[in-house]
Amino acid sequence: MSLKPIRDEIDEIDRQLIELYTRRMECSKKVARYKMENGIPILNTEREQQVTELAAERAGEYGPSAKLLYSTIMELSRALQHDMLGSGAALRNELLTAKKNVPYDDSSVRIACFGAEGAYAHKAAKKLFPGASPVFCSPFRKVFEAIQCGQADFGVIPIENSSAGSVIDVYDLMLKYRFHIVSAADIAIDHCLAAKPGAQLSQLREVYSHPQALSQCSDFLCARENLTPKEYVSTAQAARFVASQEDMTAAAICSEEAAEKYGLEIILRGFQNNPENTTRFIVVSKQLYIEPDADKISLCFALPHVTGSLYSALCRFAYHGLNLTKIESRPIHGKSFEYFFYLDFTGSAEVPDTMNLLCALSDELVDFSFLGNYKER
Amino acid sequence: MSLKPIRDEIDEIDRQLIELYTRRMECSKKVARYKMENGIPILNTEREQQVTELAAERAGEYGPSAKLLYSTIMELSRALQHDMLGSGAALRNELLTAKKNVPYDDSSVRIACFGAEGAYAHKAAKKLFPGASPVFCSPFRKVFEAIQCGQADFGVIPIENSSAGSVIDVYDLMLKYRFHIVSAADIAIDHCLAAKPGAQLSQLREVYSHPQALSQCSDFLCARENLTPKEYVSTAQAARFVASQEDMTAAAICSEEAAEKYGLEIILRGFQNNPENTTRFIVVSKQLYIEPDADKISLCFALPHVTGSLYSALCRFAYHGLNLTKIESRPIHGKSFEYFFYLDFTGSAEVPDTMNLLCALSDELVDFSFLGNYKER
Repeated sequence: MSLKPIRDEIDEIDRQLIELYTRRMECSKKVARYKMENGIPILNTEREQQVTELAAERAGEYGPSAKLLYSTIMELSRALQHDMLGSGAALRNELLTAKKNVPYDDSSVRIACFGAEGAYAHKAAKKLFPGASPVFCSPFRKVFEAIQCGQADFGVIPIENSSAGSVIDVYDLMLKYRFHIVSAADIAIDHCLAAKPGAQLSQLREVYSHPQALSQCSDFLCARENLTPKEYVSTAQAARFVASQEDMTAAAICSEEAAEKYGLEIILRGFQNNPENTTRFIVVSKQLYIEPDADKISLCFALPHVTGSLYSALCRFAYHGLNLTKIESRPIHGKSFEYFFYLDFTGSAEVPDTMNLLCALSDELVDFSFLGNYKER
Repeated sequence: MSLKPIRDEIDEIDRQLIELYTRRMECSKKVARYKMENGIPILNTEREQQVTELAAERAGEYGPSAKLLYSTIMELSRALQHDMLGSGAALRNELLTAKKNVPYDDSSVRIACFGAEGAYAHKAAKKLFPGASPVFCSPFRKVFEAIQCGQADFGVIPIENSSAGSVIDVYDLMLKYRFHIVSAADIAIDHCLAAKPGAQLSQLREVYSHPQALSQCSDFLCARENLTPKEYVSTAQAARFVASQEDMTAAAICSEEAAEKYGLEIILRGFQNNPENTTRFIVVSKQLYIEPDADKISLCFALPHVTGSLYSALCRFAYHGLNLTKIESRPIHGKSFEYFFYLDFTGSAEVPDTMNLLCALSDELVDFSFLGNYKER
């Protein structure tokens, strides 16, 4: 016996199955047209459940598997109907009227930048808005407040570090303020060990820095018994503190810029555990901008805590050929049975298919937020 | 015109479609038997691609949608075949020989606990192992090292905070050391503002604590101009520092236990932004334990960065009726086109279906790690 006869049988089944499937999709189109003419919403959860359960019943021992097959068919037929109907008018309008070009070179633009002068966020702000003079804000919330009350046009804040993960607080603020991500920059975090001019490595006793920077250099610090890590509010402020000390035993872990600014001498460079450590900074704004070369889309939505709910939602992204680059779930505070999902994927909202998907999801999903479509610079 | 005739047509299509689908599944079984007898692996990516592409071609304008339909059919038929074959012998053996009862009440058990006496991790260790005398280790890595070199049987470390998110470093250490999660506890983080006995709220100027604790109390701190937040290495060590000061202007944000231990007076309780703030602590061990009431499974795996790869993997969880409670992606260091996923779901590895799923995935997925099956206590 060989696999050939079984595979021939499967092929014949597939031929018929696809014929039925395309006929079923034709019917879905007719349903969509009827719903359009009669102002009926596309999603009919009750009807979908009936169809799925009937399929499971008919499939006998293959019931659980048929149920999943039909949840996929339902998603795909709903995707087809949404494509025909042009759902999600509010988001569609927002996407179509977005501004096109972030004024990177306008020196009058007002930037609220997280942290302090010489910190990595400042490096990101200078990279993106070379002519601007940022106002520094800390904690994160102050950046959002500055934009909210009209004191700043754009904010620059960290969103993710390649070794420490996402900055959850910033996501929460994004949801609270409903601002947009309009640009992003990856900044290589190249830590320097900096001390008062003339100090030798062997003299050093205390190393001051932000806890994340200390943990990013833990291999170096742990291997040296004579160095005690000391937490400080930011890398730049640690540099300023070290510069203010009289004795020569204190050092800071900070950026090259911060060391320079506070007159410290760099003793070591790039000694962090992971040599390719980067932090992603985002630019947020009240006004939505979608630049012509934007290739990354960020969004979030809530899903009920039932088997397969994420699976169903992801069906739509896969259907439109979109590649997820990030997914993260968070329980919703006070709602034990709902979850929030943050997703990034590669794409442009200008592509009609992608715009349709975003608009359809904005109609279907609870608390759907389109966070932005931007380019990492 | 009404929807009735279209729905009748759909129903007739569905009847035939399910008949074909069950026949196709019967064929899959025959293929599985043939593969079993001839020692051929179940996954045949090339054949799956051929079938999927042929389906897409036959579906004409519904090609993209048929492609997705077939990727689901492939997953479901592979799930069926794995169930028949009992794949993943190595993991199966590990699961079947896991120890059953974590020795919570054995006072001779050696616990490596993150942080310091009186810190929240200590609270978790005392809750889980009431009779043990933990050894305190910091940073996280030291907890893992203590277990690795045989100085400790179990480690207690934070894995996730309800407002600050996952502790990525701990996930990285889990992967590096390949230990198991054998238990977990949610500890309510009820912050106290503590100062030297006799100090008044109005006298206080500096508030010392771990950066995460300061940020969890930011609403309170921001509303009081006279209070300056000062970062410290841990909440317990901040309490010790405040106790060592001469003047009465310093306060610490710490646990009730830490305030007590260092002789501080509690001025305020539970003043954090989110009143339901909790941190989840896990117990890790070299030895795998699966307790009889274990109801949570943690695992991780790598996926190639292609459209729909996560969607396909989730199909299997949905098929087995498993509810995801957490998902998180992380880019893999040095591999730009692969992602790591961490998943938690409710379930027990003793349920044959779930064991089959875990074992099948351990065969199919790159870098699949079963992290543990445990109960949150």
